[in-house]
Amino acid sequence: MAKATTWSVPVTKALRADGAKVRKFDTSATPGFKGNKRAGEALLAERAQVLSDLQERLYANGRSGDQRSVLLVLQGMDTAGKGGIVRHVIGSVDPQGVDHASFGVPTDTEKKHHYLWRIRKELPRAGQIGVFDRSHYEDVLVVRVHELVEPPVWEKRYDEINKFERKLVDEGTTLIKVAMFVSLDEQKKRLMQRLERTDKYWKFNPADIDERAYWPAYQEAYQAVLDRTGTEYAPWHMLPCDHKWYSRLAVTELLIDALTGLKLEWPSAKFDIEEQKRRLLES
Amino acid sequence: MAKATTWSVPVTKALRADGAKVRKFDTSATPGFKGNKRAGEALLAERAQVLSDLQERLYANGRSGDQRSVLLVLQGMDTAGKGGIVRHVIGSVDPQGVDHASFGVPTDTEKKHHYLWRIRKELPRAGQIGVFDRSHYEDVLVVRVHELVEPPVWEKRYDEINKFERKLVDEGTTLIKVAMFVSLDEQKKRLMQRLERTDKYWKFNPADIDERAYWPAYQEAYQAVLDRTGTEYAPWHMLPCDHKWYSRLAVTELLIDALTGLKLEWPSAKFDIEEQKRRLLES
Repeated sequence: MAKATTWSVPVTKALRADGAKVRKFDTSATPGFKGNKRAGEALLAERAQVLSDLQERLYANGRSGDQRSVLLVLQGMDTAGKGGIVRHVIGSVDPQGVDHASFGVPTDTEKKHHYLWRIRKELPRAGQIGVFDRSHYEDVLVVRVHELVEPPVWEKRYDEINKFERKLVDEGTTLIKVAMFVSLDEQKKRLMQRLERTDKYWKFNPADIDERAYWPAYQEAYQAVLDRTGTEYAPWHMLPCDHKWYSRLAVTELLIDALTGLKLEWPSAKFDIEEQKRRLLES
Repeated sequence: MAKATTWSVPVTKALRADGAKVRKFDTSATPGFKGNKRAGEALLAERAQVLSDLQERLYANGRSGDQRSVLLVLQGMDTAGKGGIVRHVIGSVDPQGVDHASFGVPTDTEKKHHYLWRIRKELPRAGQIGVFDRSHYEDVLVVRVHELVEPPVWEKRYDEINKFERKLVDEGTTLIKVAMFVSLDEQKKRLMQRLERTDKYWKFNPADIDERAYWPAYQEAYQAVLDRTGTEYAPWHMLPCDHKWYSRLAVTELLIDALTGLKLEWPSAKFDIEEQKRRLLES
């Protein structure tokens, strides 16, 4: 956890979804954090180093036989800032230790498989931090909202996902699930920016505007996700994303918290150190 | 290219392998760069931002239908600093835009396939910067040095690799091949460090010392690689790696040079901007 002077409540607790209502969620809040933007940004720079050090320990252990890994699941509406989290939070750790995957509209090949097929292929390897930009939750969010499959089909997925994640956790993956929320107004502002800057056009898709009409349906679908797949072993965090500095800092802290929980020591030498020093000097 | 005040010769030219001899190569040199360590580190911080901006353009174009990509091949002896390049150079760009792969001793599955099979699977996607920590060149380096296959088998691989790379380039991948060299003494120092620091033990493998006895054989094998697979379309760069600050800066410049050569503009809008603004405001 960060310094007591800046966080009044540990981030894991401040963001824990337990029973909260998506529709009433304040997307402009900065739960648990006492400072302003400037303080948040200063702290982020500092904590990025802590995260980077912990990640190296995870990686080192992975290379030494430890099977554990961490998987950050970023799920959120367009413009919530998933890409920014990847760039500014995950960007602070060694690329070698990151298994990044993003899940868009399924390809033809993916459509021929169970919806978890493409997810399984991208699970983090031992010692890695996996990052999912969208995830299997698309299959109970966009799929549900747009009725891409019949209700009985998506209906049974919540349990299936719970079992899938239970297995993941049992096999040594620490899951950090983050549902990212912006307000409808903030989204409008961010989409407008993409229409106003030549270096942002590529991020814009006219369909993003159509999606705004489904906002209430998405809120309902997100609510179901939080209520039905928030488990003891893989809880959901609700992240307010109107303030980018806050969301980035908060995810950094979630990762630090998860990695700290793994109690990672540097792997011990699997050889006789003095003997190897002697051999090396003679070589 | 960097400022005229710091590079006396463009890095691509300063490192170009054309006919140079591995055995006579000065691994402690800083070819083309006029400054000292402090100047190099200051410049690196500045150039990292340039690299990051160019990478975003490559990514943006990849998302907009451009099939091009860049592939950085890092090939070098143990302790040459491949990992450091990934962490400190590739670490400065958006992780979403990086396809990183490292190639160790082939797995059982990999052994059942042609040696290029595992390479093909990891080629960068459109718009990505691929990074190979070791590569298909292992199959004419360690394989040749330790006679893991008969000479006629590795012998024909040089041509095969040239054809493979020709195809890659034709398909839109810019190849940056970097052969990294440290001196035998510098390697000893770096290996000793791994034996002296508890946070470095995991990087040490007693077999690394055995490999030192094969130094001349490796030099010969590297020479053959440079002579036989340095082509117009995929030239080799010889990177002196005794000074980490230099090798990191030089690879940054090689990447910047390659990306600049792609003349990447921001993708144009594929929609009517004013119409979308109107729709957005009404949404």
